[in-house]
Amino acid sequence: MAQKRMGRQTVKLQNPPSVAAGACVVGGKEGEGPLRHWFDYISPDSYFGQKSWEKAESAMLNHCFSLCCDKAKLSPSDIDYLFAGDLLNQCTGSTFAARDLPVPYYGVYGACSTMAECLSLAAMALDGGYGDSACAMTSSHFCSAERQFRLPLEYGGQRPPTSQWTVTGAGAMILTAEGPGPYITHITTGEILDAGVTDANNMGAAMAPAAYKTLKAHFADTGRTPEDYDAIITGDLGYLGHEILTELFQKDGVALGICSTDCGMLIYDRAAQDVHAGGSGCGCSASVLCGHILQRMTRGNWPRVLFAATGALLSPTSLQQGESIPGICHAVVLDLKKE
Amino acid sequence: MAQKRMGRQTVKLQNPPSVAAGACVVGGKEGEGPLRHWFDYISPDSYFGQKSWEKAESAMLNHCFSLCCDKAKLSPSDIDYLFAGDLLNQCTGSTFAARDLPVPYYGVYGACSTMAECLSLAAMALDGGYGDSACAMTSSHFCSAERQFRLPLEYGGQRPPTSQWTVTGAGAMILTAEGPGPYITHITTGEILDAGVTDANNMGAAMAPAAYKTLKAHFADTGRTPEDYDAIITGDLGYLGHEILTELFQKDGVALGICSTDCGMLIYDRAAQDVHAGGSGCGCSASVLCGHILQRMTRGNWPRVLFAATGALLSPTSLQQGESIPGICHAVVLDLKKE
Repeated sequence: MAQKRMGRQTVKLQNPPSVAAGACVVGGKEGEGPLRHWFDYISPDSYFGQKSWEKAESAMLNHCFSLCCDKAKLSPSDIDYLFAGDLLNQCTGSTFAARDLPVPYYGVYGACSTMAECLSLAAMALDGGYGDSACAMTSSHFCSAERQFRLPLEYGGQRPPTSQWTVTGAGAMILTAEGPGPYITHITTGEILDAGVTDANNMGAAMAPAAYKTLKAHFADTGRTPEDYDAIITGDLGYLGHEILTELFQKDGVALGICSTDCGMLIYDRAAQDVHAGGSGCGCSASVLCGHILQRMTRGNWPRVLFAATGALLSPTSLQQGESIPGICHAVVLDLKKE
Repeated sequence: MAQKRMGRQTVKLQNPPSVAAGACVVGGKEGEGPLRHWFDYISPDSYFGQKSWEKAESAMLNHCFSLCCDKAKLSPSDIDYLFAGDLLNQCTGSTFAARDLPVPYYGVYGACSTMAECLSLAAMALDGGYGDSACAMTSSHFCSAERQFRLPLEYGGQRPPTSQWTVTGAGAMILTAEGPGPYITHITTGEILDAGVTDANNMGAAMAPAAYKTLKAHFADTGRTPEDYDAIITGDLGYLGHEILTELFQKDGVALGICSTDCGMLIYDRAAQDVHAGGSGCGCSASVLCGHILQRMTRGNWPRVLFAATGALLSPTSLQQGESIPGICHAVVLDLKKE
C-alpha cells in the first residue's frame, strides 16, 4: 500500500510544500468587482497590448508568471516545473506564454478545475523529491472563451439566467519544498462524473455532482468534517451550482455551513455587475485563490482552507453531437500548519 | 536540493515503477502496416461502432483501457490514477472515455508528446508513494484530427510531401509500484522551444529542435551517451524531423546511431502506404510504445530504451493569427533492470 494514501482518492503529503508566492492578473470587469484590492494587476485593456484576445491571454499569463517569480524571489530558471493549462483549443494560452521560459513544462487540461489539478501535481512533484520549486498556473479570458465556445462577441447573444460569466484573469502559485507555509497538506483527486446535464448554459448544475463526489470522498478519506475548515471554497460552481452542492450535502445530513463559498460567487458583485449565476473559467478560481484566499490565509483569517476547483469537460463539438457534460473536481488543502 | 534530481531537467526514480501491461488499439490503415502483429486490436471500422469519429476516439480509448486492465490483471477500481489526454479540442476523446471509470483522473495536454508526459507523471506518482498503480493513456484519430485541424475529409485536400499522417490509434500503459519490470528509471522533462517554423504541414521541422534540446539535456544530466541505449525512439518526428534531429546531433559530433528511430517512421510502410513524411498524432507513439517497443523489450531485443515523444503545441487559431509552432519533447527511460 502506497504510504501516503488515505482511502481511495486522497493523499497526505509527507513533506508538505510551502506556498512561496501567488500572483493574479485580471481584466477591467474583475477589477471593478469586490475583490479588486486583492489582485496584483488589473488591465483596463482587454487586449493586454496584443492584437488578438488569444495573444492577450498568453500575455496575461506571462505577466502573471513574472509577478509570481518576483514575489517568490526566484528567477524563472530557478523553477523546476511549470504545470499550466487553459481553456483555449490545444491550451495555446499557456503554451505560448511558456514558449520563451526556461522551465520544464507539463501541460494540463482540467477545464475550470485546472488550478487545483496543477497545484496537486506541483505539490506531489515537490513532496516526491523531484524538485525544489514548482509553479501552478492557469487563465481564462472572457473574449477568447466566448468566441471559441459560444458566439462571436459582435453577435451580442442573450444569456440565460443560469449562465456564468467567464473571468478574464490568470493566477500563478509557486510552491517550494521548504518554507514557512501556508502548506499544501492533502490532495483529493477527482473522478469524472457525468450527471446527464446537457445545458451548456448551466455549468453549475453539470459540475455540482462532481464537486459533491470529491468533497464527500475527501471527508471520508481524511475523517474530517466541514467544521475542520475555516473556509471550503469551490470554484466555479456559481450561485446555482453552489446551491445544488449544498443541497446534496444536506440530504446526507451534512451542513457545509457558512464557511462554504465559491470563487464564482466571490469575484463579481451580483447586483451591480450583471453576471447572472456568477463567474467561471479557469482564471476565476485561480485569480481568487492566488489573491483573496491566499492573503486571507496569511493574515490569519482562514488558517485552513479546502480549495476544490471544478471543471466541465465538454467541447462545442461534444455538445453539437448531443453529449451530456461530464464534470470533475479536484480538492487541495492549504494549511498554515504542516500537520 | 531535491534528492532525485540529476541536473536541470532529469530525475532518477528511487523506486522505479514497473510496467504491468501495455495495450494498443488501432484503425485499419495502421493494421495493414509493418507493426500489425504487435497491436492488440485492429478495427476495420473507422467509426468503432459509433456515430461520429469523435465518439469513435473515445470508444477506442475505452476499449484500450479495458484491454490494458485485463492484461495487467487489475480491475479499473484497482487503478489509483489515470493520466490521459488527446488532440481533440478540450481533450474530449479522453474525458468521454473516462467518464464512466471509477478512477481518479488527471487530464494532460502535450499534443503528440502526451504519452511521454502521462507516463512521466504516472511514474512520479507511484515512485512518490501516492499510489500502487497508475495508467498512462492517449489517442489520436485521423478523421477527427483532420477535420478539426485541417479540412473536412470530403474536401480531399492535397497534402505536401512534408506532411505526416495522423495515426488512428490508442495506447495505454499500466504501471505498478512493485513488479518484475520493465521499469521506468529516468524522466527528462521538456521545455517549450519555438524554433520559428510556421508551416503546419511540416511538424517534424517544428518539433526536431525540441527533441534535440531534451535529448541533449538527458545525456548531459545523466552522463549517458546514445550508446548506452539499445533503442532511442522519438515520436513523432517522421522522416524529415528525424533527419533534422540526427543532423543537429551530428553538428555536436554526436552520432545517434542505427539504434535511433522514430515511431512515425515505424508505423507505416513508406513505399506502400502513401503517408509522405510518416505517422503522427498522440496515438502514434502511444500505440508503437505499448505494442512494438514494449514487446521488443520484454523479449530481450531492447533491454534499455529511451522513449522521447514530441509535441507541436499549435492550434488552428494560433496558425491563423500568424504564430510560429512551439515544440516540446519529454523523454522516459524504460529499462529491464532497475539500475
